[in-house]
Amino acid sequence: MAEFMDVHHGMKGITNEQLRESHRADLAIEAEEQVHFKQAWADPESGEVYCLSEAPSAEAVRRIHERAGHPADEIHPVPLTA
Amino acid sequence: MAEFMDVHHGMKGITNEQLRESHRADLAIEAEEQVHFKQAWADPESGEVYCLSEAPSAEAVRRIHERAGHPADEIHPVPLTA
Repeated sequence: MAEFMDVHHGMKGITNEQLRESHRADLAIEAEEQVHFKQAWADPESGEVYCLSEAPSAEAVRRIHERAGHPADEIHPVPLTA
Repeated sequence: MAEFMDVHHGMKGITNEQLRESHRADLAIEAEEQVHFKQAWADPESGEVYCLSEAPSAEAVRRIHERAGHPADEIHPVPLTA
């Protein structure tokens, strides 16, 4: 398993309830791809959303986000942490 | 205090030791601006680095990263989390 940071652009005006609902939609199906979305952060002003996950591959992250209805614009493995 | 996610582009090839050293340089002076860098993640392949912090303002985050020698390309308040 590896960690990934994915980014969604263009989510200007996102509300706390929308972020939580999107996160719940990921959590509901993530196990089917052995993905776990650990945390999500959003800036409603710029519209940037960041999601940290553990997954077997970026492809698995991509598929879960797509099926949950909010495809990611960028998915980066983040093998280094401090 | 608020949470911020900042992003550094162009760090292709960054090593674990370089990421840790940069993080240590932030930690060494962050208290002077009431900032705390909680975690950093790096993708050496794309060169993206993400830092999560708690701080009184984006300006405070910007000043610490600049003084530590690695100015951020983007700094976003992330008032929403899930």
